[in-house]
Amino acid sequence: MTKRIAGPEIERLIQLLARLPGLGPRSARRAALHLIKKKEALLEPLAAAAAEAAARVRVCSVCGNVDTTDPCAICADPRRDGSTIVVVEDVADLWALERAGALSCRYHVLGGTLSPLDGVGPDDLNIAGLVDRVVSAPAERPVSEVIIAVNATVEGQTTAHYLADRLAGTGVRISRLAHGVPVGGELDYLDEGTLAAAISRRSEFG
Amino acid sequence: MTKRIAGPEIERLIQLLARLPGLGPRSARRAALHLIKKKEALLEPLAAAAAEAAARVRVCSVCGNVDTTDPCAICADPRRDGSTIVVVEDVADLWALERAGALSCRYHVLGGTLSPLDGVGPDDLNIAGLVDRVVSAPAERPVSEVIIAVNATVEGQTTAHYLADRLAGTGVRISRLAHGVPVGGELDYLDEGTLAAAISRRSEFG
Repeated sequence: MTKRIAGPEIERLIQLLARLPGLGPRSARRAALHLIKKKEALLEPLAAAAAEAAARVRVCSVCGNVDTTDPCAICADPRRDGSTIVVVEDVADLWALERAGALSCRYHVLGGTLSPLDGVGPDDLNIAGLVDRVVSAPAERPVSEVIIAVNATVEGQTTAHYLADRLAGTGVRISRLAHGVPVGGELDYLDEGTLAAAISRRSEFG
Repeated sequence: MTKRIAGPEIERLIQLLARLPGLGPRSARRAALHLIKKKEALLEPLAAAAAEAAARVRVCSVCGNVDTTDPCAICADPRRDGSTIVVVEDVADLWALERAGALSCRYHVLGGTLSPLDGVGPDDLNIAGLVDRVVSAPAERPVSEVIIAVNATVEGQTTAHYLADRLAGTGVRISRLAHGVPVGGELDYLDEGTLAAAISRRSEFG
């Protein structure tokens, strides 16, 4: 990469930081130097936090979320509406929806999208688990709705259609996220598909 | 900041990552999730590397560089030209000059710039150590040149003039980086070619 500047322990830290999304080789060096300068306040706590997270993180056996408990805090929360399952591609999407705070539901993480070209088929995703959660739900706590909240990409929509087919006949309501103009978005920057969707699904004003 | 999404260990990791330069709250969450997904390949090695760096990093008592040895690898390297000392504001600048590869010299890290408004005076910087290195150098290995490689900012240039005054009368040659460094620019952000050119065209101070 570049010539060795500091001791091997520091170089190793830089190399690992450079593999984080959002940090390149140069910003990784800045980050490492920042950590080293704030050894007590930042580097040592980060080492401890990373070690603890590595030791305690696990994948939820119910929904595929990552947390330090299994089932995860969301699946274990009795106040959440278990009759609605929101299907997402990735844990990052689950976190994004939780930040939005629009839902008090359970989730299901697929772990990706169908992508025949990349060799990703239905068995490579956590789809059987989703169907099982719907059909095997206890009669006193049935699953009434599955919201398919995959990305609005070609692969995402292909996956959504496949999921809808798999869930057809179970009696569960199947819905998907609305397409439209992002809140705060400027029309001039939006693609034609989004604008067309926003127009065709317009609602009454006021 | 935002509502709690994952377990406290994961939240702690996110909070610490968000304090790195170049990562905000959102990119810190992405980074944390990336780390968690690559637990064996990235999270555990990062925890170990951070712990080892925290345990072994120290400030060089000669020049103020950070390394895992004291004196640092640069000060301890007998092949380097000890008759030339390059004065920098920060370790990041030292690393930037080393990446440029224009010099085989020793360094001196001031730890900042003179800034009366912020209450930073000569005694707050590693200036006495620099003067001492120049005047106390053994007769068989004298310091013949001090290259003042501070940032091309107002504070940096004020500091450069102060250093030149302090070193006047010691008989050492005092030089500074060639213009070519963009005014207002910081060394750590410059490309290697600009830095190398600025070194090779350094001029007499005053």
